[in-house]
Amino acid sequence: MRKLKARIFDIEAGYPEVVLNINDAEDMSIHSQDRVKIILNSKRIVAVADITRTFVKPGEIGLFAEAQRLVNAKEGDVIEIMLSEKPKAVEYIKKKMEGKELTEAEIETIVKDVVSRKLSEIELTAFVSALYMRGMTMREITALSTKVATTGEMLEIDKKPIFDKHSIGGVPGNKITLLIVPIVAAAGLTIPKTSSRAITSACGTADIMEVLAPVNLTAEEIKEIVERINGVIAWGGAVNLAPADDMFIHVEYPLAIDPHCLLLSSVMAKKYAVGADFVVIDIPTGVGAKVNNLEQARKLARNFIELGENLGIKIECAITYGSQPIGRAIGPALEAREGLRALEGGETPSSLLEKACEIAGIILEAGGVASRGRGKEVAKEFIQSGKALQKMKEIIEAQGGDPNITSDDIPVGNYVEKIVAHESNYVTHIDNKAIVKIARAAGAPRDKGAGLLLYVKKGMKVEKGEVIMEIFSESEYKLTQAIKLAKELNPVKLEGMLLQRIPYSIYEY
Amino acid sequence: MRKLKARIFDIEAGYPEVVLNINDAEDMSIHSQDRVKIILNSKRIVAVADITRTFVKPGEIGLFAEAQRLVNAKEGDVIEIMLSEKPKAVEYIKKKMEGKELTEAEIETIVKDVVSRKLSEIELTAFVSALYMRGMTMREITALSTKVATTGEMLEIDKKPIFDKHSIGGVPGNKITLLIVPIVAAAGLTIPKTSSRAITSACGTADIMEVLAPVNLTAEEIKEIVERINGVIAWGGAVNLAPADDMFIHVEYPLAIDPHCLLLSSVMAKKYAVGADFVVIDIPTGVGAKVNNLEQARKLARNFIELGENLGIKIECAITYGSQPIGRAIGPALEAREGLRALEGGETPSSLLEKACEIAGIILEAGGVASRGRGKEVAKEFIQSGKALQKMKEIIEAQGGDPNITSDDIPVGNYVEKIVAHESNYVTHIDNKAIVKIARAAGAPRDKGAGLLLYVKKGMKVEKGEVIMEIFSESEYKLTQAIKLAKELNPVKLEGMLLQRIPYSIYEY
Repeated sequence: MRKLKARIFDIEAGYPEVVLNINDAEDMSIHSQDRVKIILNSKRIVAVADITRTFVKPGEIGLFAEAQRLVNAKEGDVIEIMLSEKPKAVEYIKKKMEGKELTEAEIETIVKDVVSRKLSEIELTAFVSALYMRGMTMREITALSTKVATTGEMLEIDKKPIFDKHSIGGVPGNKITLLIVPIVAAAGLTIPKTSSRAITSACGTADIMEVLAPVNLTAEEIKEIVERINGVIAWGGAVNLAPADDMFIHVEYPLAIDPHCLLLSSVMAKKYAVGADFVVIDIPTGVGAKVNNLEQARKLARNFIELGENLGIKIECAITYGSQPIGRAIGPALEAREGLRALEGGETPSSLLEKACEIAGIILEAGGVASRGRGKEVAKEFIQSGKALQKMKEIIEAQGGDPNITSDDIPVGNYVEKIVAHESNYVTHIDNKAIVKIARAAGAPRDKGAGLLLYVKKGMKVEKGEVIMEIFSESEYKLTQAIKLAKELNPVKLEGMLLQRIPYSIYEY
Repeated sequence: MRKLKARIFDIEAGYPEVVLNINDAEDMSIHSQDRVKIILNSKRIVAVADITRTFVKPGEIGLFAEAQRLVNAKEGDVIEIMLSEKPKAVEYIKKKMEGKELTEAEIETIVKDVVSRKLSEIELTAFVSALYMRGMTMREITALSTKVATTGEMLEIDKKPIFDKHSIGGVPGNKITLLIVPIVAAAGLTIPKTSSRAITSACGTADIMEVLAPVNLTAEEIKEIVERINGVIAWGGAVNLAPADDMFIHVEYPLAIDPHCLLLSSVMAKKYAVGADFVVIDIPTGVGAKVNNLEQARKLARNFIELGENLGIKIECAITYGSQPIGRAIGPALEAREGLRALEGGETPSSLLEKACEIAGIILEAGGVASRGRGKEVAKEFIQSGKALQKMKEIIEAQGGDPNITSDDIPVGNYVEKIVAHESNYVTHIDNKAIVKIARAAGAPRDKGAGLLLYVKKGMKVEKGEVIMEIFSESEYKLTQAIKLAKELNPVKLEGMLLQRIPYSIYEY
C-alpha cells in the first residue's frame, strides 16, 4: 500500500483508468494493465493501471474521468493504492466456460464483482460468451435474476398492484411502449416502465423516449412520478436498476449477441427490482425476428412464466407477428415521431396501433379496467379520446421534457437518401436483420436522428421508381455506408406473385 | 476524414489508445471507445478513442505510447483520422460462437484482423472463448496454423534440415530446453528454438532464458546466430513469428485457459514459420499435468502428427511423466540457475537430466548423430564432456548475454520463506496446479526472481520440521500472498504408507 497525490485528467476512457509513475509501479510490482485498488475517504474502486516515465511524477497518480468520478477525487487529494487480488469470480467464470452449473453463491460472487467493476473487460467478455455458448439452467437463471436485481436499486412504489410490460425485441420499429404506458397510466393503473438501450437492435425504448424527455431518472424521481401520475418511461441503467445488466450489454453490443439466459434474467431482474406484480411479455415471432417460430415462442413463454413463478411475478406472454417491422419508422427520433403522432391521432400505421392496443388491453383486463375480451377496444378509446396523449404530455413534463412538443417538432438526420424500386412487382419478403444493419450503419442508435422509414409491407404491389425506403443520417460518411449496405443487402424483396412457372414439357412424362 | 496535430503522451496503456477533443469527435460521430483508423505517412493502424473536453484542444489528437510507436509519430505531426468500419471478422467470430465450422478464408480474415489490431479486446476475447468452448476441426486447425504463421515473419535458414522441439507444458519446472538446445547444437544439428512466455504456467522457456541473455531477437539475428553456431533460444513474440499467437495469449493468460485448437496451432504455426523439418513434441502426462492420462496423450500425439502431415513437418511425440515437477526449481531465475548448473556438471535432479537427454536423444537419432537406441547416451556424453556447456556459452554470448555467467551468479528473490513438514511421513502426492498457483502468487513469471524450490518428490519419507519447499519473491506483499496460498492449498500431501485402517469391529458382521 502507498499514498499518492491525485492528478485529474479529463479523459473519458470507458472504464476506470489510472496512470502511475514507473518508479512507484515497480516498487509495488504493478505492471501495465494490472488491476489496482484505489481508496479515497470511504470510496474503494478497482481500476486498470497504465504506466508512465514522465506523464505523472513519482508520488503522483493520474486519474482519468471515470476513476475520478467513482472516488470523487479532486486535484491533490491523497489516494491510497494497492495491487488488487485476482477476483474469485474468475474461477467461477471458467467453471461456466467448462459447461458446469454454477451455485447461487458463485453467481452472486460473479454479479457482485461485475457491479463493483472488479472484473476486467476480458473476464466480463469470457463470462458473457460462456453464457451465450453454454447457457444456464432455470435454477441458475433464477439466481442470476435475483442477484442482478438485488445488487442494484430496488424500487418501493406505494401504489400497488404494479403493472409492467416488456418486448423481447428482434422486430424493428417496435415503439409500442410509447402508446402502452400512457394508455395504462391514463386508465389509473401503475406502470413504472424502465427500458433498455439497444443491444443488437437499431434502438431501444430508452433511446426513443430520450428524444422526447430525459430518461436518466433516479429511483426517487421514478417513485415520485409514478405515485403522482401512474406512469413513467425511464432508462433502467440510470436508476442503477439491475446495473450488472448494462455491463453485460457493454459486451453483448459490440458482438451483437443476446444469450438466452441473459435475455430472461435481464427482463425479469428489472421487473423484480421495480416490484412488478403482473407483467405482459411481448414475444415477436416470425422469420427474421429474434424468435423464428411458434414452437420457440411457446418455449420462451413457458420459461418466462416459470421464472416469474420462481420470482413471485404473474406473467402473461403475447406471441405477436414479427416477420416485418412494426410501423414505418426505425431509429430513435423517427420512432419517437411516429409514436407521438399515433397518440396525437395523426396518420398511424395500423400494425403499430393494433399491436399497442392489444398489449395495453391485456393489462387493462388484468387491472380490472376492462372486462375480459374488451381490453383492446378500451385501449383504443383512451387514444381516440386524447386521454393517452394528455397522459403522455404529463409523463414528458414530469421527466423534464417539453410537454408541448409535437411530432412535427422532432428533428431527424439531415443526410437523407431515397431508395426506389427497380421494377414493378410484389413485396414478398422484408429482411428485419438487414433493416437493422442499415439503420445501424446510418448511425442508430447512438446518433438519434439516424434510421430509416420503410414505406412498404409484405404483399404490397410497388411500381418501378416508387420510393420504398428513406435513409436518414447525421453524417455523410455514415449515410454512404448505409446506402452501400442497403444496395448490398436488398432488404425488400420484390417478386412476381407467380413464384415459379412449371413448363408444359414436364407434364409429358 | 480529418487532419489533426499529434500530441504525444508517455502512457503505456497496453494497446493503441488516442484522445480526441469532443468537438472533433462529435463532428466525425466518434464516441468514447469507438475504433478509429489513424494514418501517418504510410503507416495505418486502428486505435481506441477516448474523448476529452480540455485535455487536448480541437484540432489536436493525443497519442499514448503504443499508438505513437506504431505510427512512429512525433509531436506536431499531422495525422489523418477517420472512423473505422466494424471488422468483417466479427461475423465469423460469431459464427464460431454458434459452433459452426469456419472456412479457410474466414480464418484468414480473423487472423489478419487480430494481427493488424483491428479487433477490440472484447472481440478477441469472444474468439478465444469460442475456441475454448467450441473447438475446431483438423481442417480449421490446419488453416489457423498456416495463417498464424504467414501473417508473421517466416524464417529462411540456410542450414537444412531444421530440427526443433516443443513441450506442451502443464508440468512445472520443465526447463529441459536449456539442456536440449546446446546438446543438439553441439552435435552439429540446426535448432532455431523459439519459445513462448508463460500462459497458465509459472514461467515459459522465454521467461527463463531471458535471465541468461536477451531473448527479444529479430529474425535476422536468429538466422545469423543459427547459421553460425547451430542453436538459439529466442522469444517467438519478439521475432514477430506467429504474432497472432501472442495476442491470443493476452486473453488466455488472465483467464488461465488454453484451448485445444490454439494449443495445436500455437505450437505448429511456429514450427511452420521457422521452416522445421523434424520436431519432437514432449507431452507431459499424469495427474495434475495438462494431459491427465495416456489415452488423452496418445490422442493429442495423433493430432500433432496429423497436423504435421498437413503442414509437411515430420513429428515424433514423447509422452513423458508429468505427475510432479521436473527438477526442483519453479520460476524464471530459479530455473535458469538449475538448468545452467546441470550443464556445468553440478548437482542436478535426475528427473531433469534424464528427461532432457531422452528428448535430445530422439533428435540426435533423427539427425543421424546417434544410432537408433543410443540417442540418450550420446546426449549425456555431450553434457559430461562440457561440450553442451561450451555451446550454451556461445549461445548466451550470441544473444547478447554474458558468456561467463555461472549458476551461482543468478540473483533470485530477496523475500524468502521456508515451508516445513508438520509431521514425519511419506509424500503421497504433489499438486502441480497448486505449485504453479503458489509460484504465480509469489510473482512469477513477471517477477524473474519469484518462484519456489521443491525439496521433495513422490514416495520420499520426510521428517517433521524438514524443509519441503522454499518460496522466493521480490515483494513482501506477494511473498505473504504466496505463503497464505501454500498453507491453504497444501501442495505436498504427507500420509502414512498405511492409507486406511479398517477397524476389527467391521469383521464381526
